[in-house]
Amino acid sequence: MQNHRILFLRRPTGLPVPEDFSLEAAPISSPGAGQFLARTVWLSLDPYYRNVMKGHPIYGIPLEPGEVMFGKAVAQVAESRHPDFVAGEYVLMSSGWQQWALSDGKDVEKIDPEAAPLSTALGAMGMPGLTGYAGLVYLGEPRPGQTVVVSAATGGVGTTVGQVARLMGARPVGIAGSSEKCDYAVRELGYTACINYRTGDLKAQLKEACPRGIDVYFDNVGGEVLSAVLGNLALHARIVLCGMPEVYNMAAPPPGPFLGPIIGARATVKGLVVYDWLARMPEMRRIVGEWIRDGRFQWREDITEGITNAPDAFCRLMRGENFGKALVRVAPERC
Amino acid sequence: MQNHRILFLRRPTGLPVPEDFSLEAAPISSPGAGQFLARTVWLSLDPYYRNVMKGHPIYGIPLEPGEVMFGKAVAQVAESRHPDFVAGEYVLMSSGWQQWALSDGKDVEKIDPEAAPLSTALGAMGMPGLTGYAGLVYLGEPRPGQTVVVSAATGGVGTTVGQVARLMGARPVGIAGSSEKCDYAVRELGYTACINYRTGDLKAQLKEACPRGIDVYFDNVGGEVLSAVLGNLALHARIVLCGMPEVYNMAAPPPGPFLGPIIGARATVKGLVVYDWLARMPEMRRIVGEWIRDGRFQWREDITEGITNAPDAFCRLMRGENFGKALVRVAPERC
Repeated sequence: MQNHRILFLRRPTGLPVPEDFSLEAAPISSPGAGQFLARTVWLSLDPYYRNVMKGHPIYGIPLEPGEVMFGKAVAQVAESRHPDFVAGEYVLMSSGWQQWALSDGKDVEKIDPEAAPLSTALGAMGMPGLTGYAGLVYLGEPRPGQTVVVSAATGGVGTTVGQVARLMGARPVGIAGSSEKCDYAVRELGYTACINYRTGDLKAQLKEACPRGIDVYFDNVGGEVLSAVLGNLALHARIVLCGMPEVYNMAAPPPGPFLGPIIGARATVKGLVVYDWLARMPEMRRIVGEWIRDGRFQWREDITEGITNAPDAFCRLMRGENFGKALVRVAPERC
Repeated sequence: MQNHRILFLRRPTGLPVPEDFSLEAAPISSPGAGQFLARTVWLSLDPYYRNVMKGHPIYGIPLEPGEVMFGKAVAQVAESRHPDFVAGEYVLMSSGWQQWALSDGKDVEKIDPEAAPLSTALGAMGMPGLTGYAGLVYLGEPRPGQTVVVSAATGGVGTTVGQVARLMGARPVGIAGSSEKCDYAVRELGYTACINYRTGDLKAQLKEACPRGIDVYFDNVGGEVLSAVLGNLALHARIVLCGMPEVYNMAAPPPGPFLGPIIGARATVKGLVVYDWLARMPEMRRIVGEWIRDGRFQWREDITEGITNAPDAFCRLMRGENFGKALVRVAPERC
């Protein structure tokens, strides 16, 4: 048996392509003293990896060409010489894009496989969920009846924002990239309305869907969508800036939207970095976990089979072609 | 005796020019029942007039070509048939650009000529002062020792922002358009440092003047200056958007700055409209008035003599060539 793994070959310019990666088969290492060996089960694909590929220290994760590609995963301990980990346990760890990974236990979190489906540790019950929950509740601060607009409405973060908004008594309006996603957003996630930004005049469609203006905008995309939203703000609107995946692909930042409407609307724009909100993780898991068990909270996964297909799946994600939380099933949950 | 007045002739494209106005001599009207006649003393020139000249309803002040140009002034009641106003009293009113104006008393405020120099009713003790005070104290929220950057640092609003920041124990750093203004900002207004944005690399100069980053930015100009500031934010920075005079001259809004740094700094951007803060006017006048009487608060006026020179002075203001609060002395304070 070998460890199939994906190496990061070169720093992309623009959108990443599969040729930025290569597949390698290596021997499976045995854990040394204080280490454990883990079998990767679910590999998470997230837009922020594109920033990690830039290798700039501000992203906090060193990654050099030739190394195993960075990635977070749900894994199962296979063999342990670490006092705190036992074979069979499930963990959340930075395994990288590979079938088997060694760990010294640092920054590894155990997962209770009974609490919720394992893969949600990378989605609704993990960092994307916390991003959406803390950003909406503590920065967006929606009031009952207020209109909350969410871009990338069916993605890992948007799924939480839209449903938490609904469950707080607000009126979620999604923005997504296909009519299929919009149908899903309204039918399954309970959005009041959802606009396909690829068809028609977004500003005019937002005006129609938000006749009293936009009270909260949770921005997962930046760019033109943000400009269209600024043209429809309600008084005292809150705008939560969460991510700008388009920009991650660019060498130099593009100009942004005209900010005049911020003044007219007495609006507030807030920058969100999820790592500031880790203390809210237990709260999020308690609340969203209950909604999941009640059947009031849905999610959707965009699953790719096998580590060899991870590069393709990541490139698809960066082109906005995923539908739901992007995951690679590296191995079955139980072997 | 005649009423010399300046008519608004045509809506400018781009920067206003003196030819957008014309001088006219009209008879002085007598007040009807419920009216008073006022002698204009100090006419205020403010960048927002450029927006009023666009005639768009969002600016709230209708102004059509051929009408007397809109303007706020300190005036003295000359003859009254209004029960609440007596000849000799000083008032703050929308007189327009003319030597004599009739009023029915609506939106007219009396001024106590003993409280502070009369002209400050249009500056530090009036709307520009309130803009700077409320915007800094309630939106900027500087803490002791924090760095507060102010653009248009010696203008009507900036003068208040810089000095209130200093008197709150913060560290004000100005941005202005000449070395003369910068010298004045440091020497007279007590700025820790002041940068001439017309010379050198503003972003690099800000980095040097703000080694721990910018905690509060009070933006009176927008554009490139705002972009340079975003490159130097401290964590949890607050940015108060107050005005964008450059944009007032444009037919269509330009793009804005790249907003990525807002996320990285977990910054907050807030839009300020002074009319929301009128309830803080007494508080501002009490506090700033005391500082003025103590000699701890300075200001500077850019005085133009005579109503006939008002168009030139306004065009100069819109080109950023004023030095201090722009005023036209239409008549002596006491006749």
